[in-house]
Amino acid sequence: MARTGRRRGSPDTREAIVSAARAVFAEHGYDGAAIRAIAARAGVDPALVHHYFGTKEKLFLAVVAAPFDPGEVLPRITGPGTDGFGERLIRALLAVWEDPVRGPAALALLRSALRHDWSARMLREFLTNRVLRRGMQLLEIDPAEAPLRASLVASQIVGLVGIRYALRIEPLASLPVEVVVANVGPTIQRYVTGPLVGRDAVAIAEHLR
Amino acid sequence: MARTGRRRGSPDTREAIVSAARAVFAEHGYDGAAIRAIAARAGVDPALVHHYFGTKEKLFLAVVAAPFDPGEVLPRITGPGTDGFGERLIRALLAVWEDPVRGPAALALLRSALRHDWSARMLREFLTNRVLRRGMQLLEIDPAEAPLRASLVASQIVGLVGIRYALRIEPLASLPVEVVVANVGPTIQRYVTGPLVGRDAVAIAEHLR
Repeated sequence: MARTGRRRGSPDTREAIVSAARAVFAEHGYDGAAIRAIAARAGVDPALVHHYFGTKEKLFLAVVAAPFDPGEVLPRITGPGTDGFGERLIRALLAVWEDPVRGPAALALLRSALRHDWSARMLREFLTNRVLRRGMQLLEIDPAEAPLRASLVASQIVGLVGIRYALRIEPLASLPVEVVVANVGPTIQRYVTGPLVGRDAVAIAEHLR
Repeated sequence: MARTGRRRGSPDTREAIVSAARAVFAEHGYDGAAIRAIAARAGVDPALVHHYFGTKEKLFLAVVAAPFDPGEVLPRITGPGTDGFGERLIRALLAVWEDPVRGPAALALLRSALRHDWSARMLREFLTNRVLRRGMQLLEIDPAEAPLRASLVASQIVGLVGIRYALRIEPLASLPVEVVVANVGPTIQRYVTGPLVGRDAVAIAEHLR
């Protein structure tokens, strides 16, 4: 059966939407990318984008081949509150990276983010708004301190992943998950609930939000 | 003046040695690369390699266009001992990365290490043996604990650099140096002098050395 004109439901349509979304996200960042613009570029109705992917966030996760869905993971690790959050976060993080399928996908994503400016921008916006900011909200962290706390958490997470899975520096590369959790968890915990050092840090964070 | 046969001192010779060294480091790693093999590949006498670069370490620093010389920086920040080491380390690290010339060179090096397996291997060996191990020795850290402490330090350093200079997540990307030092320094300090959490961590580190 020959298809003509505007695309309807098919694997090709899905791929065309993902491809259009990749271009629009790259051009406008996560925040600036509109479903309407993505649909126009793919030559489909916006309703079809929603039909296939539900939300802009789900579409983004498909575009970057995200190894996890923060909408599912975040409520699980923030649910019990700030007590023990550091250890839960590291445990959940390593569960993704130790996975034989999701691990390599996650590594590819990190490498891409560190390589391309446009990819870094997409990832930065997504990580900032959809992961870090949302995580701090779920933990009910003081909004004035949340951005700084979140970016400090991100610094330890990205470095742990870089050393253990990309540079593979021993013994951190081979330690059992629970030993890593026990050693790095307290750092996350301090960044989330400990004192923010530096007199102007919160004011500066506020200014930059 | 025409040059014939074996190369003698000239900019070309220096470049030929660096080029040969790059290939030999890539093939054999930092530890396995011999000056003799590098000289043979460049078609020069090993004495000429020493004449131009002094040591294998200096040659390596030239090959990777290293933004700093650990042989100079490490004694300076470890000299005063473990007290305040965390803050001195972060301050010295950011001094490199904030520098308009050395900063981009350092970022290029990190990106390369995360991208290529051969580059990651060179960097890993160099970072492990010439930077981390030496730093722990200078601080007189218990050798049984040093590798784990060093790799934990590396995880926070790489992540801080990745978030602040590559992914540029705010507010950490724009905070004044001293605010970063005050917030991240204590993490380094804990990794170097705090308790190692996890019953088997030291034994595992010992096993992996």
